[in-house]
Amino acid sequence: MRATPYVRVDPEIVDRNIVAMQAFCDSRGIALRPHVKTHKSAEIAARQLAAGAVGLSVATVGEAEAFADQVAAAGKDLFLAYPVAADVPRVRAVAARVPLVVGVDSVEGVRRAADSGVAVSVEIDSGLARSGVAPQDAAALAEAARALGVPVRGVFTFPGHGYGVGRTRADAAADEARTLRAAAAGLRATGVDDVVLSGGCTPTAALTGAGVTELRPGVYVLMDAGQLALGAATYDQVALTVRATVVSDAVTGQVVLDAGAKLLGMDRPAFVDGHGLLPDYPRARIARIWEHHGVVEVPDGAARPRLGERVTVVPNHVCATVNLVDELVAGDEVWPVTARGRNT
Amino acid sequence: MRATPYVRVDPEIVDRNIVAMQAFCDSRGIALRPHVKTHKSAEIAARQLAAGAVGLSVATVGEAEAFADQVAAAGKDLFLAYPVAADVPRVRAVAARVPLVVGVDSVEGVRRAADSGVAVSVEIDSGLARSGVAPQDAAALAEAARALGVPVRGVFTFPGHGYGVGRTRADAAADEARTLRAAAAGLRATGVDDVVLSGGCTPTAALTGAGVTELRPGVYVLMDAGQLALGAATYDQVALTVRATVVSDAVTGQVVLDAGAKLLGMDRPAFVDGHGLLPDYPRARIARIWEHHGVVEVPDGAARPRLGERVTVVPNHVCATVNLVDELVAGDEVWPVTARGRNT
Repeated sequence: MRATPYVRVDPEIVDRNIVAMQAFCDSRGIALRPHVKTHKSAEIAARQLAAGAVGLSVATVGEAEAFADQVAAAGKDLFLAYPVAADVPRVRAVAARVPLVVGVDSVEGVRRAADSGVAVSVEIDSGLARSGVAPQDAAALAEAARALGVPVRGVFTFPGHGYGVGRTRADAAADEARTLRAAAAGLRATGVDDVVLSGGCTPTAALTGAGVTELRPGVYVLMDAGQLALGAATYDQVALTVRATVVSDAVTGQVVLDAGAKLLGMDRPAFVDGHGLLPDYPRARIARIWEHHGVVEVPDGAARPRLGERVTVVPNHVCATVNLVDELVAGDEVWPVTARGRNT
Repeated sequence: MRATPYVRVDPEIVDRNIVAMQAFCDSRGIALRPHVKTHKSAEIAARQLAAGAVGLSVATVGEAEAFADQVAAAGKDLFLAYPVAADVPRVRAVAARVPLVVGVDSVEGVRRAADSGVAVSVEIDSGLARSGVAPQDAAALAEAARALGVPVRGVFTFPGHGYGVGRTRADAAADEARTLRAAAAGLRATGVDDVVLSGGCTPTAALTGAGVTELRPGVYVLMDAGQLALGAATYDQVALTVRATVVSDAVTGQVVLDAGAKLLGMDRPAFVDGHGLLPDYPRARIARIWEHHGVVEVPDGAARPRLGERVTVVPNHVCATVNLVDELVAGDEVWPVTARGRNT
């Protein structure tokens, strides 16, 4: 029996999630370009590409390096959806292996793309206030690209302000479509043809508005407690869980798991209660965690796991959990986390 | 020039921190048994052992495996300061390589220690309410150990409720000493000789009370923004920093770093403001982070880093940051994070 704690993936649920998102995108005529930052796994990427993804999205040059050959072999391409700061030689080397588009939100970024010999997509801010120019400023970057001979693939945004409850998801999806259309109109006015309007994250994907031509969700393939809390996932879509053991029941009213922050992560957005869910103990709550301790509080009279028992935990943020381990236990197989820690 | 983001360690500050903690412990007649969960690095462990540490503390069997030979070669021993749940064969295998003591807070744990052929230390709860029995219940576990022929090394606690401001640190240190003494008296009454009273974490170490014979601090060797906020460290003690680059200034009033949660972690205790400190920009604040974005807000009129500039960040919780990377850049050397991800 495998020692706990470890991370488990259900390949059948992974496949179902991939098929469902692909079918949704196909039905809407939207290209699906899954973000690999969630799973960082060549095994899962292969399934996404085989199911119909047009290519992959990556967050770092290191992730691009890890997936370049696989994507090239599939005859597809990579989008580095990030305002990459430096690394001209490395970007150039990746671009020699696979067609590559990088994100830009500054003239300086366009200059580096020119030096690297890659095409760009202009990042716009659709309401998150993180990176990206205002929609009306996208055309100026497209002009700068034209002046330097840099191809412009389109515009992109991350509607991450859709991570919230109530109307938030729908509002963010509407912001995404409206701002992408406005920015795309600016690009077309500068003479850019075939503008790709790329958006999408898991909570807003199903609500995607008119005009968006590409989606880049990541979490959908594995899901997590955050998506459950948002109403963007159901339990039967949760493909990744942590297996943990109760190691202590010495303090009254609680038990302690051997899964803590070094496996579950410390992500705890305002819309989530506790540090992960125990599906088999719905009234239990992971109230406090340290690096290797997860304290599970159980109300009087509710079922509680016993000392030595193995339990299943759904982490709050699956991208964080995957990036903490070197392998995913997938049925009888072990899938390496190919791009773990590729932050650079 | 090394691509950002990366983690940098100053070997001179590491050495100073090691010497200072060792000198403090020596002056008080306390044995120092540093916790490797913070640095997970054979290079740093070697310096701690050479400076006078009696051995090392580890949190998992995997960490014990990673450091067993190094500690044995130094003629010292390991303490697995955790109520380990299973892995009898693995614990037995480690114990064949190096003298090993494991934590217990249940009769079941004592039985496993008997099966594994290792000595135990009884964990007590000094106020954190995580794991560990009440001080008055330690003797019963010592009796259970005696009945099974398991040597008892002493009692231990983690005064983690010392992570707080105001009187908290001093109160937690007082709780630690009082409860360890009470539990040790119980052990002596059952006939255990030479009881080790093991406590200590970085915020309480300097306040350690009478009777404590061993300390297990971890963070002191690297320090972080959490310790600065607690008043348990000064800037000249911060040995680990993250180097990051400003990748975006497209949104007014802020800049974006390429260091996010996958490097800084998501630890944000109540006593810390923001997601890390920028020593060179004291009025700047890392207000929001995502996996690869750190949004730095700067008040009007204050100095702010420019697009493309490299900056230094002090992470909130150094143990989390170290566990996210495979190597530490230490001057001209690169130190591998020997036990990264050894959760099991």
